[in-house]
Amino acid sequence: MSAEVVPLRPRQADNASEASLGPIMALTAGGMNAVNSVILERMQSDIPLIPSLAGHLIAGGGKRMRPMLTLAGAALCGYHGTRHHKLAAAVEFIHTATLLHDDVVDGSEMRRGKATANLVFGNPATVLVGDFLFTRAFELMIEDGSLKVLKILSAASSVISEGEVDQLTAARQIETSEERYLGIIGAKTAALFAAATRVSAVIAEKSEAEERALEDYGRNLGIAFQLVDDAMDYDSASSEMGKGKGDDFREGKMTLPVILAYARGDEDERAFWRDAIAGHRTSDEDLAQAVRIIERHDAVNATRERARYFAHRAIDAIATFPAGEARSAMAEAAEFAVARRT
Amino acid sequence: MSAEVVPLRPRQADNASEASLGPIMALTAGGMNAVNSVILERMQSDIPLIPSLAGHLIAGGGKRMRPMLTLAGAALCGYHGTRHHKLAAAVEFIHTATLLHDDVVDGSEMRRGKATANLVFGNPATVLVGDFLFTRAFELMIEDGSLKVLKILSAASSVISEGEVDQLTAARQIETSEERYLGIIGAKTAALFAAATRVSAVIAEKSEAEERALEDYGRNLGIAFQLVDDAMDYDSASSEMGKGKGDDFREGKMTLPVILAYARGDEDERAFWRDAIAGHRTSDEDLAQAVRIIERHDAVNATRERARYFAHRAIDAIATFPAGEARSAMAEAAEFAVARRT
Repeated sequence: MSAEVVPLRPRQADNASEASLGPIMALTAGGMNAVNSVILERMQSDIPLIPSLAGHLIAGGGKRMRPMLTLAGAALCGYHGTRHHKLAAAVEFIHTATLLHDDVVDGSEMRRGKATANLVFGNPATVLVGDFLFTRAFELMIEDGSLKVLKILSAASSVISEGEVDQLTAARQIETSEERYLGIIGAKTAALFAAATRVSAVIAEKSEAEERALEDYGRNLGIAFQLVDDAMDYDSASSEMGKGKGDDFREGKMTLPVILAYARGDEDERAFWRDAIAGHRTSDEDLAQAVRIIERHDAVNATRERARYFAHRAIDAIATFPAGEARSAMAEAAEFAVARRT
Repeated sequence: MSAEVVPLRPRQADNASEASLGPIMALTAGGMNAVNSVILERMQSDIPLIPSLAGHLIAGGGKRMRPMLTLAGAALCGYHGTRHHKLAAAVEFIHTATLLHDDVVDGSEMRRGKATANLVFGNPATVLVGDFLFTRAFELMIEDGSLKVLKILSAASSVISEGEVDQLTAARQIETSEERYLGIIGAKTAALFAAATRVSAVIAEKSEAEERALEDYGRNLGIAFQLVDDAMDYDSASSEMGKGKGDDFREGKMTLPVILAYARGDEDERAFWRDAIAGHRTSDEDLAQAVRIIERHDAVNATRERARYFAHRAIDAIATFPAGEARSAMAEAAEFAVARRT
């Protein structure tokens, strides 16, 4: 599958669902082994609770999209060193720390198909091990020694935490606009994707324009990725994707499917959303009702359509790089971000 | 007061109680204004909740011991630049982030004489703003641009989070030894003091030996500081020091006063401690009983004696630096760490 050359042109909607992560996984398989070794080695500590808790989430899988994108970006840039292994591990540690803190913040109980770390180990340990992984991420970056890379990834980390606080502020606010929502996911999700891909151009010593191109790819892909995550939380056709279905609904998060259904709805439906987002409708039947209203207004599909727009911008952002396995795999990963059902 | 030369020799116990922070505050007053400006500027964000929450704790005062020590160390090294302002602010941000997460982890309700941020703003926002301040700390260090400084402060951050997890693991464990307790406070408190003073030698381009001397000063002072903090939580003669008195007792923390009182106690007293540390004795009368047992075994004074040992090691660590206002002020700060009642 890795040898198959995927055309750069965005696929049409009717066959995009065939897109897979196969090519990008094949492209980065060797490097990801090295990255996984770094991850396992650097999550160790003399305090046994740390690797237990970190391993609960890290060993629990996940697609490791972000480090894979750093590796793919490096391949696209023709980079042949090994610096990207530590940096990709740092990116994954930042992401993992964020997930641990997110689950505490949201009081989540399911993640990647299993009980969350906060449920198993408690909030206190989960907060602290998140901090630990975050410091380990910085240690890895400092070992790499590039201040430019450090600036990119620390700025992204700062933006992520601002985005998380912003999301918290917007929760249960029915008047949240699509614009504000895009700002939030741009910060909390896309900033790390953008940094993860940009650093690959930096270590390959590519031009500023190429750095920007890879950053644009990452940012747009990140937005697409989060849009689809948010769509799936209300998609009756999506399988359980690990996190507890309906979590966004019960937490009163104003994600795009809700924003669109509210905007497109009649007065009765809007009253339902006001109630639900305020936290007064949390039963399974309320969730089923939410899914029905969202389906009625085609808001899951509309959210996926928005995601497709960003995925195509991602693909076009790297159009100036030479055609080949890396560019094709990255294009297909963007299509996959939109088409995936899990 | 700043002009008064304090003798380097450790004061005798009977007049050490006159030691004050006056000299070190006078020594660093100008620099601390610059540090406070950096702190206020860098805690800003477009997300209004961030400066509100951060300001709640930061504007709430605190002695700002750690940044003051960075500045004092720079003065001791004859440093005349301005790099220490940003770095001292970074140190304070790391400390503030740790306090925010600590209060969430401990469920604390009082800090520096006022309601904790987690009580006012909730745990979710407090965790996330802690993350934000932590990333801001790294941004400040990266702006400074020294990989050596970054390594020192990020290693300290990593050790702090390990120490916090270790403390969590030791909580409610009656068998915690003095040795383990010293390991925990060495990590959770002294590592940042040590890094804060070491970086002053680094930016002043002093020798490795001088770096180590300042690091030893900071580490020993940090241990003394934490020992006295822990003593005051059971000291009937100490005024309210901002944090809720008896917090350590109710959280089942095995601090040195308890470790000593347990070791020195009879079987009835040990039974009391086993019950209390397990969480079965949390009333005001139970706390009063704990204070009485600790007094009976002179465990507060014994803890202060241990602190005096570390303070004197701190003072001796910088004995090779030239005598003068900076060294005297730093010596008196170490005496103060032991003698303080708030």
